[in-house]
Amino acid sequence: MDIVGIVAEYNPFHNGHLYQISEVKKRFPNAVIVVVMSGNFLERGEPALLDKWMRAKEAILNGVNLVVELPVAFCVQPADLFAFGAIRILKELGVQKLVFGVENVDYDFDKMAQLTKKVHGDFSTYNESYAKAYQRAITERTGVDVSKPNNLLGLAYAKANLELGSFLELIPIQRKKAEHHDQQLPVDSRIASASAIRSAVLSNKELVVNFVPNSTVEDLQQSKKASWTDFWPLLKYQILTSKVQELREIYGMTEGLEFRLKDKLERMGPAVAFTDWIDEVKSKRFTYTHLTRLATMILLQAKKDEVAQVVRSPYIRILGFDDLGQKQLNNVKKKMTFPVISRVSQKIAANPLDLDYRAGLVYSQCSGQRQDFGRKPFQG
Amino acid sequence: MDIVGIVAEYNPFHNGHLYQISEVKKRFPNAVIVVVMSGNFLERGEPALLDKWMRAKEAILNGVNLVVELPVAFCVQPADLFAFGAIRILKELGVQKLVFGVENVDYDFDKMAQLTKKVHGDFSTYNESYAKAYQRAITERTGVDVSKPNNLLGLAYAKANLELGSFLELIPIQRKKAEHHDQQLPVDSRIASASAIRSAVLSNKELVVNFVPNSTVEDLQQSKKASWTDFWPLLKYQILTSKVQELREIYGMTEGLEFRLKDKLERMGPAVAFTDWIDEVKSKRFTYTHLTRLATMILLQAKKDEVAQVVRSPYIRILGFDDLGQKQLNNVKKKMTFPVISRVSQKIAANPLDLDYRAGLVYSQCSGQRQDFGRKPFQG
Repeated sequence: MDIVGIVAEYNPFHNGHLYQISEVKKRFPNAVIVVVMSGNFLERGEPALLDKWMRAKEAILNGVNLVVELPVAFCVQPADLFAFGAIRILKELGVQKLVFGVENVDYDFDKMAQLTKKVHGDFSTYNESYAKAYQRAITERTGVDVSKPNNLLGLAYAKANLELGSFLELIPIQRKKAEHHDQQLPVDSRIASASAIRSAVLSNKELVVNFVPNSTVEDLQQSKKASWTDFWPLLKYQILTSKVQELREIYGMTEGLEFRLKDKLERMGPAVAFTDWIDEVKSKRFTYTHLTRLATMILLQAKKDEVAQVVRSPYIRILGFDDLGQKQLNNVKKKMTFPVISRVSQKIAANPLDLDYRAGLVYSQCSGQRQDFGRKPFQG
Repeated sequence: MDIVGIVAEYNPFHNGHLYQISEVKKRFPNAVIVVVMSGNFLERGEPALLDKWMRAKEAILNGVNLVVELPVAFCVQPADLFAFGAIRILKELGVQKLVFGVENVDYDFDKMAQLTKKVHGDFSTYNESYAKAYQRAITERTGVDVSKPNNLLGLAYAKANLELGSFLELIPIQRKKAEHHDQQLPVDSRIASASAIRSAVLSNKELVVNFVPNSTVEDLQQSKKASWTDFWPLLKYQILTSKVQELREIYGMTEGLEFRLKDKLERMGPAVAFTDWIDEVKSKRFTYTHLTRLATMILLQAKKDEVAQVVRSPYIRILGFDDLGQKQLNNVKKKMTFPVISRVSQKIAANPLDLDYRAGLVYSQCSGQRQDFGRKPFQG
């Protein structure tokens, strides 16, 4: 049996994701598909449209066998640390093959990882000029362009795999054209980019029924959809009432940013919009995405030592499974070194889950749905 | 010239307040009326319906000559400390007479203060049984019942006056019946209780035009009205993302309350209402009002040392004046020992205004109106 891993955000789960799963099943008819999925806050520093429970359920209903959560300490991060956290968890779950969509399927990601293993992402100085310098260094060593986001993410998976003993067979698959960062829903395809789907959903102007499976349609119809618009009043309040020395404890707060973002906010007045504030704080040193990630960390009150603690000692949080997924869990359980969490008790909420538990409390202020106590994995 | 002081909240400014001002003018035709008014958060632990700038303007338009703000460190407090802060500020402003409404105008408040000066309000143990014991001790010494709220407040003014050298002539005036805690608007009077007016305004069910002057009607029509409903999402978020050791730094947090209020909130889930949560946390030790004051302190992130700092070193914040009021200010300016603030600069915002400046930022999240930078006193 092939244990095939996928790293995903499913924001929301759409036909492109379905296509990827069907590709896996075509190539590996006996595959157990294991997905490590971001929770309620995502890689680009934004809340997920639908909560992790709905997205995990949609994945199971559409052919995935096991969904576990990537702790928020890894989710809201640049590609390298995001990838490392995800691959580390897939290793723990006995995954042998990794399928991932890229813009250039002909790239040799293993070789690229070998050639660039000494080029490290220095997360404390992650800014625009740094990101460009990093890509240039990669291109110099590999001879290929990695500026496209999924190629860069593919390389990050390959590097994490190399660092963790090359336990994975890497299987890049070609992304459909429409899956790139197009902001428009296509007219000639049933696959659209997740961001085009999100903006259609949030603007209520276009129907997305052609681009997502039925389970996603239902969840989108019946649930509160979250965006920064919902959390911005809370973030604004947090920044305004925090002292600069308190903001300084937040993960990713560097170089006096705590003064800059507080000062800009106070000057812009109570009616300022989230994106206008980010645009005002943005600079060559601090990119838009760096700032939305930092904004998420402030919103969640994620302190430097808390993030470091989870990065050192991750855990497996089960969000959903079917029979095959459960078997796979049982197969690897004895070998696992990480704690496995499928239900949350008071003790687990305090430790080790603390930060993710808090993220769930914050997310639930918008969704209205509890994220931890009383919740159990979806069984397909 | 008689310099007459009033301590007020004006939440909102209504015909009962107008009646009090006309009584002052009848008795002291040459009076300069100086009001020390709560800012945007009030004695019973709630946001003001309209912001302090509107309420100060209404007071000036209706005959008050000078309005200064009572710092929030004194506003959101039991009667004794509230009164002490207000009387201390009136002393600084050269006030000689204090007019205040009471239920029993025949009480000798000076004598009552003499008889009870050793009965102190211990604010750290302010709870139901304590409040009752305090009233019983007063009654034992004075022979009169002080359970009615304005009698008790009158005694608090008298005690503060005694403590500050008996510089004030105390002039209790009879409150109109409807000014008590009636929750209904009366049919046979143009004076209603502030709380009946507030609930009519917030429920949008009844017109309050008969019970407030025109200036209040206009402000109520044109402005966002604030209540706990607006600030509850922010408070909930603050409690859920704060660690217990952070909550412990908040002014008024005693006896493990930080665990209790966090735990109850988590258990009650994301949809819980403010009053339901308070009812759940409430106990014999912790009255409803104790908890709403504490809730306000959490909302404003008012730390123990910050409140103590303002109580030690108050200041005079000018909100509005007319010519007479300005003259009075000029007369006392040289003798004043407190800093006088009429416009807020960056430096003043940081110190000494810090806590009130933060309260303004929080309040403006609901009102949409800046409370400090760029605001200047209303000139009548």
